Amino acid sequence: MKNIPFSEEKIRAIANEFGTPFHIYDEKAMRENARSFLKAFNWNKGFKEFFALKALPNPFILKILKEEGFGVDCSSYTELLLADKVGMKGEQIMFTSNNTPLKEYRLAKELGAIINFDDISHIEFVDKNLGLPETACLRYNPGSLKKGNAIIGHPEEAKYGLTRQQMLEAYKMLKEKGVKHFGIHTMVASNELNPQYFVETAQLIFDLIVEIKRELDIDIEFSNLGGGIGIPYRPEEKPVDMYEVSKGVKKAYENTISANNLRDLRIFFESGRAITGPYGYLVGTVIHKKDTYKQYVGIDASMVDLMRPGMYGAYHHLTVLGKDNQPKDNQYDVTGSLCENNDKFAIDRNLPEVAIGDIIVIHDTGAHGYAMGFNYNGKLKSKELLLRTDG
Amino acid sequence: MKNIPFSEEKIRAIANEFGTPFHIYDEKAMRENARSFLKAFNWNKGFKEFFALKALPNPFILKILKEEGFGVDCSSYTELLLADKVGMKGEQIMFTSNNTPLKEYRLAKELGAIINFDDISHIEFVDKNLGLPETACLRYNPGSLKKGNAIIGHPEEAKYGLTRQQMLEAYKMLKEKGVKHFGIHTMVASNELNPQYFVETAQLIFDLIVEIKRELDIDIEFSNLGGGIGIPYRPEEKPVDMYEVSKGVKKAYENTISANNLRDLRIFFESGRAITGPYGYLVGTVIHKKDTYKQYVGIDASMVDLMRPGMYGAYHHLTVLGKDNQPKDNQYDVTGSLCENNDKFAIDRNLPEVAIGDIIVIHDTGAHGYAMGFNYNGKLKSKELLLRTDG
Repeated sequence: MKNIPFSEEKIRAIANEFGTPFHIYDEKAMRENARSFLKAFNWNKGFKEFFALKALPNPFILKILKEEGFGVDCSSYTELLLADKVGMKGEQIMFTSNNTPLKEYRLAKELGAIINFDDISHIEFVDKNLGLPETACLRYNPGSLKKGNAIIGHPEEAKYGLTRQQMLEAYKMLKEKGVKHFGIHTMVASNELNPQYFVETAQLIFDLIVEIKRELDIDIEFSNLGGGIGIPYRPEEKPVDMYEVSKGVKKAYENTISANNLRDLRIFFESGRAITGPYGYLVGTVIHKKDTYKQYVGIDASMVDLMRPGMYGAYHHLTVLGKDNQPKDNQYDVTGSLCENNDKFAIDRNLPEVAIGDIIVIHDTGAHGYAMGFNYNGKLKSKELLLRTDG
Repeated sequence: MKNIPFSEEKIRAIANEFGTPFHIYDEKAMRENARSFLKAFNWNKGFKEFFALKALPNPFILKILKEEGFGVDCSSYTELLLADKVGMKGEQIMFTSNNTPLKEYRLAKELGAIINFDDISHIEFVDKNLGLPETACLRYNPGSLKKGNAIIGHPEEAKYGLTRQQMLEAYKMLKEKGVKHFGIHTMVASNELNPQYFVETAQLIFDLIVEIKRELDIDIEFSNLGGGIGIPYRPEEKPVDMYEVSKGVKKAYENTISANNLRDLRIFFESGRAITGPYGYLVGTVIHKKDTYKQYVGIDASMVDLMRPGMYGAYHHLTVLGKDNQPKDNQYDVTGSLCENNDKFAIDRNLPEVAIGDIIVIHDTGAHGYAMGFNYNGKLKSKELLLRTDG
């Protein structure tokens, strides 16, 4: 069972005032989570988390995270504009793009963002057209070189990053072209729940940093360990224990970075989902029930508001408001109204008996929910509301 | 090999004037196709095609199709508004929705659209809240009752339509509540290339019409055979021969409707993809090449402009402008720039050697292309251009 942090009365009052559907975000829980993330890594001088704003590109949320000391990770022109709008400056912004238009590099450079190069050819491209910045980061794609079974998603099939050989070539090139400060980045998983995975990624990066120092005499100053930290979408799943991750990363750091007498290394993350995902809820009202070859519950939200179930078959937990203690002895498909058969929030889901007018709360919509919706069938997206810390 | 109807010079001139990426639509070809569709069915008095505007909700295109005598099929509030804006009136609009909010039924009724009920419970719902219209249509979902192997997509898994038993109950109910004119609709496939499939669907519907007459003494006046007519996305595929479909449907009509002395039956379609799909092209420029574990070609368009390859793994043919006669001896992934690994237009595609600055034309984007894009990463959608008949 997954709880919701709002009382039934509160949700009904908000639904009455604003109408459904809406996404609602829990500021208090987001702040606590953000603080806990930073605390877990306070052993590392200069630790920073750059929130992947693509997960929840809402200026109010970004301001909250900024207050908590987060930077942002941007991947496009508009994301850079948004970061600038909420007052993120210079190295508070990491620009992790791919197949990047010149215009986007120009803005990133103007804002003083840390530019994270996705391909070796981009170094020449930026140098020639804009001049290189003083600080540069490279994105590493380990391919199948490293423990294939532990690394999820076949990195060698991903469009991102440089090969190991290119990494060495590229750092050499950057140094020769006058770049002064260097970072390294990798991100080869998504929504991973095994803490050990992130420790292995750190070890892989730390080993490469040692090699870069040995081969090129370049000191890497920061290592962006990426995102990919999963959240427990299913009731039986557990959140990633960031203290366990931190402990493992610290050990790898001591055995690799410290043991080789390398300079202090700042550790960065660029998590999105893990920061805000669990603290958003999509709230809809049941407008129709249907009984044909299956039982259907139709709500007033649709794939426009949350695309993950339709696009990826992703599980999102559902709470029927006020009925969560009743036996879940009905099996429903919970649908939106798009003219698209995959506009369903759940398939064959066991729920209490649902009635027209019931409010259904869809969990874990705080990342890749509102952000990812489209306007198919001309449907307009839902509202976004923030439940403030003071209620 | 799939040709493009524009000369290299023309595309380059347009790209220079407007910049890439853009979708471009070929008015002449669309008009010819529309006329051919109507001509194929001119044996049927009152034949009508209601263009499923979700495929290409562009007002200029809708006006062109209106001039050719088409109606439109709408599935949402905004689609109804758009139909109204381009001057579609009354029974020129078919409203085929599901899990429908009251507000949408209200607008459909105000516009005089033909309301196509998706569920038996909606009859009571509309009657109570708005009053029923004089004309009503019901959407049939044949489930697994009819030749499972010929019917694509497991209709019993689809959220749409009424069961066979509900159809009879629902017509009875509509008649008792004073509805005067009746239609029937089914749509159980998508992107189907076998002409025989549409003939079988017609036979299934005609059989049901006979049964409805016998059981309830109700005369069905129109049968909407749905959409689902595929287009040849792949070079080796052939378009559906609508004359062959028409011939088969005519035979079924004669053997079923005429042979049972039923009243004249109007035949409707609500095709979207087959009308405009082949006559749209997404044009992008190569901005980067990348050589890591695979060869990548990065263009300035992305999943924002065309979601089908990333969302469904759908094939769209690519032409490298001016190089289509060169040997296709390079294998590329053709990517956009979203921070999403499925932002790829093609995977492992054999193409001529591509250079930065090359223009890549993506075929068959005239349906579910622009319409389906989203704004992930805050990316703005491309332009839409129309190549007029006069060039």
